[in-house]
Amino acid sequence: MADQTSDIKALTFDVFGTVVDWHGSVAREVRALAAEKGLRVNAVKFTKAWRAGYRPAMDRVRSGELPWTLIDVLHRMILDELLVKFKIADALTEDEKAHLNRVWHRLKPWPDSPRGLKRLKQKFIMATLSNGNTGLLVNMAKNGNLPWDCIFSSETFHHFKPDPEMYLGAADALDLKPEEVMMVASHKHDLRAAAKHGLKTAFIKRPHEYGRNNNPDLESEPEFTYNAESFLDLADQLGT
Amino acid sequence: MADQTSDIKALTFDVFGTVVDWHGSVAREVRALAAEKGLRVNAVKFTKAWRAGYRPAMDRVRSGELPWTLIDVLHRMILDELLVKFKIADALTEDEKAHLNRVWHRLKPWPDSPRGLKRLKQKFIMATLSNGNTGLLVNMAKNGNLPWDCIFSSETFHHFKPDPEMYLGAADALDLKPEEVMMVASHKHDLRAAAKHGLKTAFIKRPHEYGRNNNPDLESEPEFTYNAESFLDLADQLGT
Repeated sequence: MADQTSDIKALTFDVFGTVVDWHGSVAREVRALAAEKGLRVNAVKFTKAWRAGYRPAMDRVRSGELPWTLIDVLHRMILDELLVKFKIADALTEDEKAHLNRVWHRLKPWPDSPRGLKRLKQKFIMATLSNGNTGLLVNMAKNGNLPWDCIFSSETFHHFKPDPEMYLGAADALDLKPEEVMMVASHKHDLRAAAKHGLKTAFIKRPHEYGRNNNPDLESEPEFTYNAESFLDLADQLGT
Repeated sequence: MADQTSDIKALTFDVFGTVVDWHGSVAREVRALAAEKGLRVNAVKFTKAWRAGYRPAMDRVRSGELPWTLIDVLHRMILDELLVKFKIADALTEDEKAHLNRVWHRLKPWPDSPRGLKRLKQKFIMATLSNGNTGLLVNMAKNGNLPWDCIFSSETFHHFKPDPEMYLGAADALDLKPEEVMMVASHKHDLRAAAKHGLKTAFIKRPHEYGRNNNPDLESEPEFTYNAESFLDLADQLGT
């Protein structure tokens, strides 16, 4: 694969799941909040339900049913429904709800992320390409020591992945050809959408994205430009 | 002034002149190119004329006379006119012209910039807020070791400073109130526009922005939140 490397100028990263551990981070905060307030909540179920609401909410925007809406606001819409469903809506103050909603700004990186990204940064332009909003991604990077050169978010392009405007918008904003950009993600559907528009692809295996005792699809695929066990492995393969 | 510091969450930076030395960087490359090609060009006059074309070109976009246009393209329009005016248009190949146009991606930081920005980054969100385009600012940061958390450019908001959309857009994208953001610039008109929309302001003195033997306005002004001799001085004043 080494012959492909020299063309690649920029890496664009999916963030939730690929760079940071949303499942562990959210479940931990939900568990701590429940303990503090004396509430009975299954933190893992709560976390999975919150994340499960994310794609349908984005699809409502993508279809035009909702106007352009930031992820922070979509997260809050889903949260408010969940608090009712889990029967804890009345137990939390507005400040507590607002703080909980911003847990997505405080997601913790996977252990290899800060060091792996720093190595990759020596050779490539490093940009997020996330459905999160800009402020969320900036705060997360400050909290987690993520050395981005550039934040591209759904807010930058007013589109959500897998809309082509995201992948092509990033290449265009960097004044690069699509094939000079490589999408890096732990989700095959994201990579396949990127490849459809001419970007190169790197699949990162994140066995615990949905917590332990899950069986995510971790098979390497020859269709992807690279398949890697971690960012450190990807840096090795890219010679940086 | 120390009582104001605690409210400030993010610093937004003008780039050309404030962070990087456009005059010295462009003049140096023009001089080198002229030597290489055996051309007689007054590099200082050429550089000043190129920069002088910048604001009128942006104003043509701001007034609606031109549609939305990236600075890279405006720089090239001005360059093509200048090459004719300086009678060297036929002496350069298209590749040489394209390379020269990208000198704005290669502007060198002032000596205090990398270290001063790194100190400020320990306490604040650090964003560009420049009329440059995104790719230009990303390349410049890679070349010059400028540790931005976030690139905001005219391309982000499809406006040029001093349009309010730039100042308020940056605060909004960071989910901050205008008064939690401080505009940092070596140009008083930029700071006055930012202040009009509620941002705090820091004036940085750059005596050699237009080269030596100039008399720029370097007076401190009580209307600005801070007045500083350099980024290191600003970091001292902000306690970081």
